[in-house]
Amino acid sequence: MIEMGRKARAAATVLRGASADDRSDAIRAIARQIRAKAGDILEANARDVAKATRLVDRLRLDQGRLESLACAVEQIADLPDPLGQEMARWSRPNGLDFARVRTPIGVIGMIFESRPNVAADAAAICLRSGNAVILRCGADALASCLAIGGAISAGLEQASLPPDCVQIVPTADRDAVGALLGGLGGAVDLIIPRGGKSLVKRVEEEARVPVLGHLEGICHTYVHASADTEMAADIVVNAKMRRVSVCGATETLLIDRAVAPRLLPEIAAALVASGCELRGDAESRALVPSIGIAEEADWTAEYLAPILAVRVMGDIDAAMDHIARYGSGHTDAIIARDQAAADRFLDEVDSAILLWNASTQFADGGEFGFGAEIGIATGRLHARGPVGPEQLTTFKYVVRGTGQVRP
Amino acid sequence: MIEMGRKARAAATVLRGASADDRSDAIRAIARQIRAKAGDILEANARDVAKATRLVDRLRLDQGRLESLACAVEQIADLPDPLGQEMARWSRPNGLDFARVRTPIGVIGMIFESRPNVAADAAAICLRSGNAVILRCGADALASCLAIGGAISAGLEQASLPPDCVQIVPTADRDAVGALLGGLGGAVDLIIPRGGKSLVKRVEEEARVPVLGHLEGICHTYVHASADTEMAADIVVNAKMRRVSVCGATETLLIDRAVAPRLLPEIAAALVASGCELRGDAESRALVPSIGIAEEADWTAEYLAPILAVRVMGDIDAAMDHIARYGSGHTDAIIARDQAAADRFLDEVDSAILLWNASTQFADGGEFGFGAEIGIATGRLHARGPVGPEQLTTFKYVVRGTGQVRP
Repeated sequence: MIEMGRKARAAATVLRGASADDRSDAIRAIARQIRAKAGDILEANARDVAKATRLVDRLRLDQGRLESLACAVEQIADLPDPLGQEMARWSRPNGLDFARVRTPIGVIGMIFESRPNVAADAAAICLRSGNAVILRCGADALASCLAIGGAISAGLEQASLPPDCVQIVPTADRDAVGALLGGLGGAVDLIIPRGGKSLVKRVEEEARVPVLGHLEGICHTYVHASADTEMAADIVVNAKMRRVSVCGATETLLIDRAVAPRLLPEIAAALVASGCELRGDAESRALVPSIGIAEEADWTAEYLAPILAVRVMGDIDAAMDHIARYGSGHTDAIIARDQAAADRFLDEVDSAILLWNASTQFADGGEFGFGAEIGIATGRLHARGPVGPEQLTTFKYVVRGTGQVRP
Repeated sequence: MIEMGRKARAAATVLRGASADDRSDAIRAIARQIRAKAGDILEANARDVAKATRLVDRLRLDQGRLESLACAVEQIADLPDPLGQEMARWSRPNGLDFARVRTPIGVIGMIFESRPNVAADAAAICLRSGNAVILRCGADALASCLAIGGAISAGLEQASLPPDCVQIVPTADRDAVGALLGGLGGAVDLIIPRGGKSLVKRVEEEARVPVLGHLEGICHTYVHASADTEMAADIVVNAKMRRVSVCGATETLLIDRAVAPRLLPEIAAALVASGCELRGDAESRALVPSIGIAEEADWTAEYLAPILAVRVMGDIDAAMDHIARYGSGHTDAIIARDQAAADRFLDEVDSAILLWNASTQFADGGEFGFGAEIGIATGRLHARGPVGPEQLTTFKYVVRGTGQVRP
């Protein structure tokens, strides 16, 4: 592992000097190699699938999924390059000229579980942002990831970049995760974990390098007293049910007491018709008796399933208090016609993403226009929300003088 | 300590809702209280000084230093407020309007050693950026810091902000540092250590929350073959000798072989005249026999003293290799008339601050125009280089829709 770190650092130095076009070419070459090596990848994947006992659908690749993957990689080649961009420029009275210029972070360690497509996506996003990456996938997907890694290496070689720009840890040994979290002797600048709570917990406990983590998405949609009826029902059903397994899915519906008698029956009916189970507080159950009982634990549940917690709130302050107490600071929405209420919500709720009159399912780098994302950060430092190529950069200050010395 | 964390979190919530003017008023009130309580503070400081056995000058306050401190705090009240600023705004084809808005980080834990003025500076910078702060000072300065803390609390109360916005750990117990590094049960969002290597090392080992750390400043000034003679001598003397104890002081002079015979004797004479000891490689000693012998350890020494390591380099590539190998990624400068050489250096050297024809001693938030700094970050994530109020913020995405659901 230490040797992988050393190689990654050396590759990162080369990559930092590579042009935007060189890196785009490499990403396109990787997409070509994924298509060229489809046979190898699918065969390796079949071995993984044969051994798998759970989450088989996440793991399985087929010709169609592989083609989608190659297309997704190609799109990243077309994204604007973040590197070298002047984020700010100013001068001082002494004539010094300051520029803040985007640069790569360096070496990223990514730890993920059973989706083999993450290997190719992450490789492409890291190349777009000029970072070398060490990928550590779960045991379930190891053969698939190593086969994809073969395509990535071949693509990098074709584009004359060091294959060590993207390395895949060749073992499912858990000690490898520990070594990565320890930073491989200073060779890893950032860890990105993508997986379940136990992985994220381990990363938080053990990491000795900065982490861009993705904790829970306990997302709320609050239907304000001024909400448009039809809009509220449409948004709530989409926010919960479009895809229940994504982190931006609404897990709790808060509805204002002023409109609950009128709106909740309608919204509940639409949700139930779409296959959703509801669990509510006493007040919501009094309005819609078919709603099940919500326990305290339901307010902090990230169901990732067709289940929605429902609570009637006295006013916007009560709703914001509920979100501050039970939410995870990921994504929260207000449905309101009243602009003053919306402004308060957008200003006062302290989550990474706040929406007014839109579905929480828009919490996604693609929907933000970032082109691609490597995850959604729930921490507060460096990046918050969707992490695209731009968020995988840092900067340096370039100061141009004409002989200035400091008095 | 857990209780301090809980109080800080509650104060941070109030602070997030406070206006820029409220926070400016509080900072001004703190400056007034520092003046009003000068007697208490100086008396407490005299007790610290009486017990101190080392670094007494750093620790000592007097009426003049206290007045400078009050003025420095007042200046922070006048800095532009970073909060609420729209860092970016764009819309998507579906009509969703995105804004990236600056917000406070939340609760900052700051650990520092014996300069009591840091307490007031840090409090003011944190208030300017809307963050609550828990300050943990070294045992040497505890009485002084608690007395300054009394002035800070009084100022906050006068401005009707919670005194818990700025708390000072009332004990010199080392366990308190451990508790802070553990995050006080999720109440601390960021740790800023400011002190010697042993402190930074402990923080890196133990912190369970993000850290904005300040490691060494092994800064280089490289005199290129195209350097102007007089400018080179002026800048090198300033970069080393203006103040030898600051992190932006040049610790190694690299001089190009093409100009070393002509320039090194002159630069060395100017340095020696200013009181600097030189330690060089064989080639520099052949040119200037009075230069002492540099060992391998000199290339990685952060002297913080009137000592300079000197090495003759074959060309710019050799100089950049030296910096990559021995430097700390803090601040490095090139002296050159040749723009192409300067551009390569500014582009290829991977340090937080790169200067062309200017002294490395400009590595300072005030000189950058940030108004104030809480430290200089040597990590790569979130902030790099001088950390002013803007760097102590994070952001949220505010997304305004008109009923959009995600297809």
